[in-house]
Amino acid sequence: MLRFLTAGESHGECLSAILDGMPAGLAVDKRLIDADLARRQTGYGRGGRMAIEQDKVKIISGLRKGVTIGSPISLQIKNKDFKIDELPAVTHPRPGHADLAGALKYDRIDVRDILERASARETAARTAVGSLCKIFLEKFDIRVVSHVVELGGIRTGVAGITGSEILKRTVRSQLNCADPAAEKKMIARIDEAIRTKDTLGGIVEILIEDAPPGLGSHTQWDRRLNARLANALMGVQAIKGVEVGIGFEAARRLGSQVHDEIGFSKGKGFSRKTNNAGGIEGGISNGETIVLRAAMKPIATVGHPLSSVDIKTKKECKATVERSDICAVSAAGVVGEAVCAYVIADCMLEKFGGDCLTEILRNYKAYAKQVREF
Amino acid sequence: MLRFLTAGESHGECLSAILDGMPAGLAVDKRLIDADLARRQTGYGRGGRMAIEQDKVKIISGLRKGVTIGSPISLQIKNKDFKIDELPAVTHPRPGHADLAGALKYDRIDVRDILERASARETAARTAVGSLCKIFLEKFDIRVVSHVVELGGIRTGVAGITGSEILKRTVRSQLNCADPAAEKKMIARIDEAIRTKDTLGGIVEILIEDAPPGLGSHTQWDRRLNARLANALMGVQAIKGVEVGIGFEAARRLGSQVHDEIGFSKGKGFSRKTNNAGGIEGGISNGETIVLRAAMKPIATVGHPLSSVDIKTKKECKATVERSDICAVSAAGVVGEAVCAYVIADCMLEKFGGDCLTEILRNYKAYAKQVREF
Amino acid sequence: MLRFLTAGESHGECLSAILDGMPAGLAVDKRLIDADLARRQTGYGRGGRMAIEQDKVKIISGLRKGVTIGSPISLQIKNKDFKIDELPAVTHPRPGHADLAGALKYDRIDVRDILERASARETAARTAVGSLCKIFLEKFDIRVVSHVVELGGIRTGVAGITGSEILKRTVRSQLNCADPAAEKKMIARIDEAIRTKDTLGGIVEILIEDAPPGLGSHTQWDRRLNARLANALMGVQAIKGVEVGIGFEAARRLGSQVHDEIGFSKGKGFSRKTNNAGGIEGGISNGETIVLRAAMKPIATVGHPLSSVDIKTKKECKATVERSDICAVSAAGVVGEAVCAYVIADCMLEKFGGDCLTEILRNYKAYAKQVREF
Amino acid sequence: MLRFLTAGESHGECLSAILDGMPAGLAVDKRLIDADLARRQTGYGRGGRMAIEQDKVKIISGLRKGVTIGSPISLQIKNKDFKIDELPAVTHPRPGHADLAGALKYDRIDVRDILERASARETAARTAVGSLCKIFLEKFDIRVVSHVVELGGIRTGVAGITGSEILKRTVRSQLNCADPAAEKKMIARIDEAIRTKDTLGGIVEILIEDAPPGLGSHTQWDRRLNARLANALMGVQAIKGVEVGIGFEAARRLGSQVHDEIGFSKGKGFSRKTNNAGGIEGGISNGETIVLRAAMKPIATVGHPLSSVDIKTKKECKATVERSDICAVSAAGVVGEAVCAYVIADCMLEKFGGDCLTEILRNYKAYAKQVREF
Repeated sequence: MLRFLTAGESHGECLSAILDGMPAGLAVDKRLIDADLARRQTGYGRGGRMAIEQDKVKIISGLRKGVTIGSPISLQIKNKDFKIDELPAVTHPRPGHADLAGALKYDRIDVRDILERASARETAARTAVGSLCKIFLEKFDIRVVSHVVELGGIRTGVAGITGSEILKRTVRSQLNCADPAAEKKMIARIDEAIRTKDTLGGIVEILIEDAPPGLGSHTQWDRRLNARLANALMGVQAIKGVEVGIGFEAARRLGSQVHDEIGFSKGKGFSRKTNNAGGIEGGISNGETIVLRAAMKPIATVGHPLSSVDIKTKKECKATVERSDICAVSAAGVVGEAVCAYVIADCMLEKFGGDCLTEILRNYKAYAKQVREF
Repeated sequence: MLRFLTAGESHGECLSAILDGMPAGLAVDKRLIDADLARRQTGYGRGGRMAIEQDKVKIISGLRKGVTIGSPISLQIKNKDFKIDELPAVTHPRPGHADLAGALKYDRIDVRDILERASARETAARTAVGSLCKIFLEKFDIRVVSHVVELGGIRTGVAGITGSEILKRTVRSQLNCADPAAEKKMIARIDEAIRTKDTLGGIVEILIEDAPPGLGSHTQWDRRLNARLANALMGVQAIKGVEVGIGFEAARRLGSQVHDEIGFSKGKGFSRKTNNAGGIEGGISNGETIVLRAAMKPIATVGHPLSSVDIKTKKECKATVERSDICAVSAAGVVGEAVCAYVIADCMLEKFGGDCLTEILRNYKAYAKQVREF
Repeated sequence: MLRFLTAGESHGECLSAILDGMPAGLAVDKRLIDADLARRQTGYGRGGRMAIEQDKVKIISGLRKGVTIGSPISLQIKNKDFKIDELPAVTHPRPGHADLAGALKYDRIDVRDILERASARETAARTAVGSLCKIFLEKFDIRVVSHVVELGGIRTGVAGITGSEILKRTVRSQLNCADPAAEKKMIARIDEAIRTKDTLGGIVEILIEDAPPGLGSHTQWDRRLNARLANALMGVQAIKGVEVGIGFEAARRLGSQVHDEIGFSKGKGFSRKTNNAGGIEGGISNGETIVLRAAMKPIATVGHPLSSVDIKTKKECKATVERSDICAVSAAGVVGEAVCAYVIADCMLEKFGGDCLTEILRNYKAYAKQVREF
Repeated sequence: MLRFLTAGESHGECLSAILDGMPAGLAVDKRLIDADLARRQTGYGRGGRMAIEQDKVKIISGLRKGVTIGSPISLQIKNKDFKIDELPAVTHPRPGHADLAGALKYDRIDVRDILERASARETAARTAVGSLCKIFLEKFDIRVVSHVVELGGIRTGVAGITGSEILKRTVRSQLNCADPAAEKKMIARIDEAIRTKDTLGGIVEILIEDAPPGLGSHTQWDRRLNARLANALMGVQAIKGVEVGIGFEAARRLGSQVHDEIGFSKGKGFSRKTNNAGGIEGGISNGETIVLRAAMKPIATVGHPLSSVDIKTKKECKATVERSDICAVSAAGVVGEAVCAYVIADCMLEKFGGDCLTEILRNYKAYAKQVREF
């Protein structure tokens, strides 16, 4: 069992996380985690905070000479903007944020007690955790890749491309978008939102390539791989929808146009002509690329503040405007990769057991052979 | 903590479930559960199995004189069609089912070892568990209602209606659809699918009305209400997408057109002019109706069987055709109600504690007063 | 992850359990489970209920043709004495039982609402679950054996004997005691307790033989094998103490007289000259026999009833006398075997992963080789 | 749900912990945690490490202006002796430690990869977490107190004293022992062990005073309070036995001499004349003081090293001697307090729900009234 907790507030001293259950023997190149942290901070439309922070992970325990030893791994990311105790009270809750619901739940008059933790800054910790999981998955040649497929209503025209194509096509992208023509329009839309002091959301697609068949299970409701991935993705700030494979589109088609026919070729084993299922059938990975999409609502802090009510006086007011982004869809993709990588890594450990990398790899390879010879 | 496990195969002796953590003092009217079980079995387009089974729950422990006593509750639903050990082997895995992925995972040559448990028949057990949770939620005036909002590409025009309106409008519906004009077209589409030996899916909407603000939490990724609901819904057979509030549509709009402005009126307290968030902000219920939608793919067993491969011979073949439905979208709504009711009941116990109904109600009312006077 | 829930009241229709996570491909001989159920019912000093019930397990799902298929396994044990709704109210809580604490917690005036579930009758369900786990462990040549080492203050003189010796020596025992001389005195003590209308407890020892090194972990507090076994044993009705290896005695000796020196011989690998640690060091099994002892208090229902207070009138009274045993220590051993077998099976799945028996065995053997060649 | 993970190695940069689920509104006086950390480091017979480290907790997130806000709380304790990557390899595993079992499990040639995390230094993190829980419990007037009741075979003669008496009597104690005469002998025994290069263990008693009746539950095996406490205590390094109330002694007495008769007095409600059960019946707290004892084996690193085997050469050798204590029983008491405080705090949240201190107190008081008026 792989599990993790994160902690930390937006303007606290630091974010932290403990990841418990990672096997021994994994060499961890901290630069790979920092690279994901940097990717999380970029994207056209990001706000002022991103200029302040340049996230670097510090691994304060769980490694010895750069290699995991089976111990829980404790991570830390410093906040340069550490001033939580000095910041003013917030009493004008912002629509779309946890502000009001949290204030009621925790009985807080100062909404800052809520927003400091609810802030998407927390996703830096999850990104670091997931990045570590990606390093682990890499040993099994499993890759997790994301790209922006829609932003402010503009869609890309690149359905069905592979992870390596995405990586190639997004090298110069400012939005982690694999379709330059679409990206141009997206940037124009962001510019317009900046001008009108508004915000935008979008849709990211996450691919998990070369995961073996057999992750997750049909046998109990909470063991299903799609349920666990949906849980992880919907648990990311601002995500309002999740779909697997062609998702909602599947609901509109005939069965004969949805289900992926089964083929077989010697050497390669079973395969599919299509992948509408997004690599998961009956709650179990089927060996095809796992495809997920997550819908991110527009950033909730709108420059032209929305109507709100002062918590103390109960008088109408404008919502507080905290420093924020205009659009952060590409960042959501990076976070999406991270949380999916965690789920897949957890499923791998569940399926293959093992306490050190060599043991898991040994079990994995024996299973891969079993599948090939099935 | 409320938790449950289900067990049982499609052609086994019975389905069963144990629900652990329900407080004492709740009178359980078994007929309400049977009513939900019956609703799960109806719907235009259901197949032959539904004619055979007429599900009735038997509560074999956890009650005394019809009232809960804090003990785990053990439920049973008999299968009339009990013949699992006599049924023939299945070696032609069906696309869209757990068949192939499960056979590889569990190393089974006879796919029946997989499909018997993967079958949506299991949802009868979950429906019974959730129905019990609905009886519990009723004590807090929380209602969980579903309706079909799209089927085979045909949408209803009834966005934003209340639960009681839905109940009123669906009384005579054959598809649990609140829009008679749309339903007519849906039925025609089902008839067409029957004719062409094809299958259909659709989209259900689930409303949770009058849940208090403060369920779920923004503080840790797996405590978020939306993540837990997405987990539960995506864990239902054939669900490929889940969204909260306006969901994917939110990704296309400007922030100013998405976030729900906050108002206040004496007596009623805080309120919203819109409910695009679907009652959840920052992972916490905000007091508005919780609105979810789930996309169901078409039934995977297609009458005109899809291409497959014989597991033993590795030769091309047609997928096995097990008796099945053409369309079961309205049933998915009933199951969706059930799994959402479970999540909400669990969150209620977490927020309000308590071991018997009077204690929870006492805590709940004191909190409701706190919120009113906030 | 192997998990289970039980349900059922002492005079309800039946006890039930769902065991979730057992791999596919395990042939289950129901007679082995029935044999453990029978062993749980025997023992000198048992009361009238044991004459009424002759527990037989019914496996109502999870098997196909007698073999597991990866599905959750649902078990049932009928109560012949089914009359829960007819039995009279109990308002004189019995010291030593859950009666009063439960009535206060769940706010029940009729203590029967508590005692029906708190009754040790529930351990029949856990025995069945654990018996299934023993069948699984048998495939890895891991055996779980118990014997009574103390009863009413009389100790056996057979410390350190092996499981097979225990099985041999207890064949004719009425108390599952491996020391006939001690047993004679134990029986005399029970006879005396019957005469004086009193009750007795004792101590059972549980051995887990040939578990591999490496179960459990030192890395996190709740992953430690001893912690998990203590949890399981202390969770059995009437258990008031648990120890591993020489346990409390270790606290009295010098370090040099406690810790088990390490030896090595070609072929056999590492070994210990003593096993004071009881097979667990640092929360991890070390390859020696795992040895646990659990202390059972005397049966709480004493024939000469103890002082109590009427719940309604608050007047002094004598505690209700429900039909009960005089002594049930040997039964506690059988239950102890069961709950320990569950923990070990869960740890095996965690360490070796796998979804069917062949896969787990394959992983297990590869690890055993790794350990041999370490 | 209150949960926590710790991380950190003995010679790593720091120990850390994340405690998730603590309600909002609790003022945290860091000095109280530091006081417990200091108590954990003292005790006659401690070794050189204790002179190096002077543990202070740093709370790096979860508080705002010294008060909890519902966020997870991240704690850190620096290691002054930070040199994990410089320390030499260890290849002579020490009997009584995780060394060999861990090396086999994680396939490590250098035992330092195991012992760094298995070290009891980790308990500093658990002490800090539990100390925070004690601050929380204090708001409900629940106190957790420990004392040493046996050391190296020498017993105190102070059974049944209250927590405040313990606190009074141990003010000047060097061993957190409430019996000065016994302590004198204990110190002499430690001196002797120092002389002979040996080590000692002992037994600590933990009292939880004024916990309400109704924590834990009889309804499911893993909800039982005694099982959860046994789990927590047995999960502490070097603990080999746990008992509740009179524990193992109960197994030797007649029922009439064990079970605590029930009395009642107006105003005070139900009470017991004795407390042999140690405050827990049927897995539920009964309102009496909860009494636990834990047996600690002697420190495993013995100055006169025990026999071992070189991991690489497989030749006989003497176990490595890492800097260590001679006796740390009083420290085990402090850690025992901590882990029990965590379990009780978790049970309080489960029973009373609530997201901020005022809400939980409100629910708690209403329940206390219910119990009084039962």
